[in-house]
Amino acid sequence: MINKLVSKIKKMEAPIVVGLDPMYEYVPSHIMKASIEKYGETLEAVGDAIFEYNKGIIDAIYDIAPAVKPQIAMYEQFGIPGLVAFKKTVDYAKSKDMVVIGDAKRGDIGSTSKAYATAHIGKIKVGSAEFAPFDEDFVTVNPYLGSDGINPFIDVCKEEKKGLFILVKTSNPSSGEFQDQEINGKPLYEMVGQKVDEWGKDCMGDDYSYIGAVVGATYPEMGEVLRKVMPKSYILVPGYGAQGGTAADLKPFFNEDGLGAIVNSSRGIICAYKNLEGFDEESFADASRQATINMIEDIKTIF
Amino acid sequence: MINKLVSKIKKMEAPIVVGLDPMYEYVPSHIMKASIEKYGETLEAVGDAIFEYNKGIIDAIYDIAPAVKPQIAMYEQFGIPGLVAFKKTVDYAKSKDMVVIGDAKRGDIGSTSKAYATAHIGKIKVGSAEFAPFDEDFVTVNPYLGSDGINPFIDVCKEEKKGLFILVKTSNPSSGEFQDQEINGKPLYEMVGQKVDEWGKDCMGDDYSYIGAVVGATYPEMGEVLRKVMPKSYILVPGYGAQGGTAADLKPFFNEDGLGAIVNSSRGIICAYKNLEGFDEESFADASRQATINMIEDIKTIF
Repeated sequence: MINKLVSKIKKMEAPIVVGLDPMYEYVPSHIMKASIEKYGETLEAVGDAIFEYNKGIIDAIYDIAPAVKPQIAMYEQFGIPGLVAFKKTVDYAKSKDMVVIGDAKRGDIGSTSKAYATAHIGKIKVGSAEFAPFDEDFVTVNPYLGSDGINPFIDVCKEEKKGLFILVKTSNPSSGEFQDQEINGKPLYEMVGQKVDEWGKDCMGDDYSYIGAVVGATYPEMGEVLRKVMPKSYILVPGYGAQGGTAADLKPFFNEDGLGAIVNSSRGIICAYKNLEGFDEESFADASRQATINMIEDIKTIF
Repeated sequence: MINKLVSKIKKMEAPIVVGLDPMYEYVPSHIMKASIEKYGETLEAVGDAIFEYNKGIIDAIYDIAPAVKPQIAMYEQFGIPGLVAFKKTVDYAKSKDMVVIGDAKRGDIGSTSKAYATAHIGKIKVGSAEFAPFDEDFVTVNPYLGSDGINPFIDVCKEEKKGLFILVKTSNPSSGEFQDQEINGKPLYEMVGQKVDEWGKDCMGDDYSYIGAVVGATYPEMGEVLRKVMPKSYILVPGYGAQGGTAADLKPFFNEDGLGAIVNSSRGIICAYKNLEGFDEESFADASRQATINMIEDIKTIF
């Protein structure tokens, strides 16, 4: 799956991923209204509306963006109907040949991590039948529990030819509280980065490993260090746009081959109809396409 | 909610929680068979079966055990039907007046943690209607992202009178890989414990804070230190029984008032029919009651 991701990034000249993080207030009102007419003021209505919203965006961008990253929390907050919308979004994006990164940040002790790996990138048997419960291509994982929380995910990746992005240095303001603490003269995030590099070496695609890392655009100096610590790992870079990261901040995350990083934008693209001139709620999908084009052009300026 | 938990623990003289972690192979075959007859070899059948299995156990223990802790990964692995069973299990346990600890280990950047908090312990509005998506009483949270990943959970706890257990030192063998690393002469887990204590002081119930911690029974020496670092936080202690922790290991996790810790057992109780003499698949619920009684007696020996 890392080979597919890299090949799509090269072909589209677009090292980007669109974050499908549908907050209630982001959904254009005509979509929400139609769903509430169908289902009443229920979670089912919201689930229906966010899937319609995502579908509009996917239809508008699938030929220019290699991947989407639905953040599962934004679906989980709407209960079961929200998670139904998550699953439909994963399936729909894959039907358009997009790579799907499930942003779930799961992680637990061994047997439990195995269950999460099964849920998101694996398969499960029921008698003689087999099911892929959520079936994303990549999933994000939290490393706080150490190797035996990560290894079950790696095992499933190997079986299913899927991939991971492991949290190393997150984009939020207080990420340093624990991640930046010095251990034998090096920050914790660097130690986690070294582990990602180790795990990744055993999981190589053609040029890059399918074990990647998450490093926030908001910390470019740390990105520069981590780029060297994990040369073969793709870095998923959140924090561009709405969280404050600029194109200039992104250069250190890339290797000299112009590859090695994939930059996420969520609100900047899915809510573009609120900010870009000439668009409104009705043209939210066209606005998201324009914002995607703008983002790709912006990132090209750094090379 | 911490007051309810403490009061039930006192009344039942049982500082325990039963982990409802239904792996496929744990479900007694007559239950699985009946569900497959109803739904075919589908995830719906498994969802139906694990709820029936849980219901049997809850009916057998609700008068002697204060709380259950469903591990959401074990439901998520069966996709949407698994999560439907999770929600039904939460609701059913609450209908029997049990306290429900959702073991979800969620954690993300601020706006995303807010969505997870809404999902698990909060409420969401749809027009003029309001819903509690999963509606557990407590939820477990991963601290790797720092304060701004935790604060949205605390805000919701305050509004809803619910609670958290924050991962401090997990029970798994490799938990030390990052958690034990020394920072200014102290291990990371202790630093996280200090933060739990800080967060917790602002969130007091009658005698204990509703911001608790997870510390594995497999690390009693660290439990002893952490008990003193966070005197007002309840410690959720996994790792007793199947993971190797014994009653003697548990003493350091309790305060001198005999309170302050709640010990989890999952397999040891829900799979008791496989190990306890005189029980079989058909009597799985009675076996789980007997195992619960045995566990309570075992823990009493330490006082």
